[in-house]
Amino acid sequence: MASFDPLSTHTPFMQRCCQLAQRAAGYTAPNPLVGSVIVQQGQIVGEGFHSRAGESHAEVFALRAAGDQAQGATLYVNLEPCNHHGRTPPCTEAIIQAQVSRVVIGMADPNPEASGGIERLRAAGIEVMVGIEEAACRQLNEAFIHRIQHHWPFGILKYAMTLDGKIATATGHSAWVTGQAARQRVHQLRGVCDAVIVGGNTVRQDNPQLTSHGECDRNPLRVVMSRRLELPKAAHLWQVDTAPTLVFTQPNSSRDFQKVLRQRGVEVVTLTELTPATVMAHLYERGLLSVLWECGGTLAAEAIRQGAVQKVWAFIAPKLIGGTTAPGPVGELGLTQMTAALPLSQVSFSSVGSDICVEGYLVPTPAATQSKAQPKLPLEELGA
Amino acid sequence: MASFDPLSTHTPFMQRCCQLAQRAAGYTAPNPLVGSVIVQQGQIVGEGFHSRAGESHAEVFALRAAGDQAQGATLYVNLEPCNHHGRTPPCTEAIIQAQVSRVVIGMADPNPEASGGIERLRAAGIEVMVGIEEAACRQLNEAFIHRIQHHWPFGILKYAMTLDGKIATATGHSAWVTGQAARQRVHQLRGVCDAVIVGGNTVRQDNPQLTSHGECDRNPLRVVMSRRLELPKAAHLWQVDTAPTLVFTQPNSSRDFQKVLRQRGVEVVTLTELTPATVMAHLYERGLLSVLWECGGTLAAEAIRQGAVQKVWAFIAPKLIGGTTAPGPVGELGLTQMTAALPLSQVSFSSVGSDICVEGYLVPTPAATQSKAQPKLPLEELGA
Repeated sequence: MASFDPLSTHTPFMQRCCQLAQRAAGYTAPNPLVGSVIVQQGQIVGEGFHSRAGESHAEVFALRAAGDQAQGATLYVNLEPCNHHGRTPPCTEAIIQAQVSRVVIGMADPNPEASGGIERLRAAGIEVMVGIEEAACRQLNEAFIHRIQHHWPFGILKYAMTLDGKIATATGHSAWVTGQAARQRVHQLRGVCDAVIVGGNTVRQDNPQLTSHGECDRNPLRVVMSRRLELPKAAHLWQVDTAPTLVFTQPNSSRDFQKVLRQRGVEVVTLTELTPATVMAHLYERGLLSVLWECGGTLAAEAIRQGAVQKVWAFIAPKLIGGTTAPGPVGELGLTQMTAALPLSQVSFSSVGSDICVEGYLVPTPAATQSKAQPKLPLEELGA
Repeated sequence: MASFDPLSTHTPFMQRCCQLAQRAAGYTAPNPLVGSVIVQQGQIVGEGFHSRAGESHAEVFALRAAGDQAQGATLYVNLEPCNHHGRTPPCTEAIIQAQVSRVVIGMADPNPEASGGIERLRAAGIEVMVGIEEAACRQLNEAFIHRIQHHWPFGILKYAMTLDGKIATATGHSAWVTGQAARQRVHQLRGVCDAVIVGGNTVRQDNPQLTSHGECDRNPLRVVMSRRLELPKAAHLWQVDTAPTLVFTQPNSSRDFQKVLRQRGVEVVTLTELTPATVMAHLYERGLLSVLWECGGTLAAEAIRQGAVQKVWAFIAPKLIGGTTAPGPVGELGLTQMTAALPLSQVSFSSVGSDICVEGYLVPTPAATQSKAQPKLPLEELGA
């Protein structure tokens, strides 16, 4: 082929794929976010995205929209087309049938079960390019990639603290640390996460709703970790007409309270040992991609220690509250030297209303990985 | 005058005044930072700034540089020219003598003793404009203005904390929270502050130098607040060949240690009651414009409660250290409701190396003002 074809030509089309894919954020678990466009002579002639598990894949929607114009066209897709029969037929066959002449792929599929698409397309004589806007494509599906590689959902720790590092006063009062814009941002974040997790203390102290408050069409699964189920009988989280709630507990917890919860439609799951690790393993089995830790410092520290947190969203309100016993966002990590602090990578920050949002990724450490197999420390927050 | 004279014409010249004035930051106490330029037919024909107390004022330097070209020119200066005989003759007379035809002033002098310059110039037939780039001029001299209005130096609280709000580990280890660029920024900040204050705990735990580490030509006065003088005999702060050190203590403190300090050239001042308020009153009397609180959380909280902090510089390192007993930057403020938190105004933030710097001003509250007259809480940090 002699045509002039710089990589930059592909960028806007791949960005469009990511944009389309993002529309289904929160809906696709356990599937990835995928968008696809068909380009004929520099013009988009078909677009599609994967809207939820069980529905057709993005490529199929895009090919349908393009119709005959797919013939000889370039198909863009942010993730390698699947080559296996799942709930839907393999996308590779649909692409080959449509006589597309070239396929431009953002990133190869990290799922061994789904890979092989690139080879299949090449074997059919289609030109295939891989790794266009790969960083953006990887970020779009960071939760899916983590799930596939680690067999746990992707964990995000979100907290809101004052500029002097407190998430509440010494008496536990925390309404509100940040302003409305930051809280709205959190509601949006909940709308694209599959589950939100808190401990018993948060239910007792804050009686949160943990919904997207209408910022998205959907709400996450609301998860409570409570060893003994010494929880209030009336709580927003027990109103499951708003959103589903799942309570994890241990075998010795109150049978009566379990019954109360079940009667209200709250799902109760008993785990022999209740830890972030066992909860993450369970939520993986349920097919979740991402979970948002919105818990207090004790549970947050335990989740970090057990490798259940990959990303941090810290909202910082420009005010001082003080308080020598006022809680901070992260409890005991057992680190005695400042040089042992857990660094964040790919840090970015921005203003949200009058607050500051800092985002970053916890660098995986051998200790965090190792701790998955170690006996767990007692969780104070879950203890009561 | 029929000439076209939009306000925007003045902006670059006033900015130049501020730039010149800033060159002497750290050197002028108790005087303000002042820069001046003389403009003849759109061209700068003379520049000057006030370099230190006792030296000529900015206007005089600028007029000297302009020579005959000052006649009929416009003189720009960020602060109202003085009209009184101090250590130098009044600037107004020099301006009148030079036959300048117009004076453009950034802001009126907040010092009653120095005011009257505008009226004197107008009485002499000179056109005077006041309030050009006033916000920038006020910020340039925020410490001077505060000093004049409140009879205390301007207080800045600086701290470095992790993204989970800790300034050290539970064992007190804090080297280093932030990276080199942030520490360098702090060294620069010390270079333009008149004093840096710490408590005894900081001396014992960190053995700091509190100098500008060569980032500036000057070092601040290093101030230690210690009730009992139970301090290490060897400490960087007792090496006064690097920079002067002043130790505030109470009458009942160790006479022997006072003697040790004085022998090494450390100044020791005994205050009947050692508090941020009494220290600020003393440092005002010594002519200081600005002090930098680089202390731990206990003393920081007390300084805030007593109205000795006007501005906050928070450096946030993107890492997590945890620790339920690890100290935060601000100790007990006695606030039990999050709604009572002390808000910062004019908040700005920026990246410094891999860290984040948040700057803002504490909004003066009646409580903070009132506390100046109230009995002081015991200061744990000073207690030992």
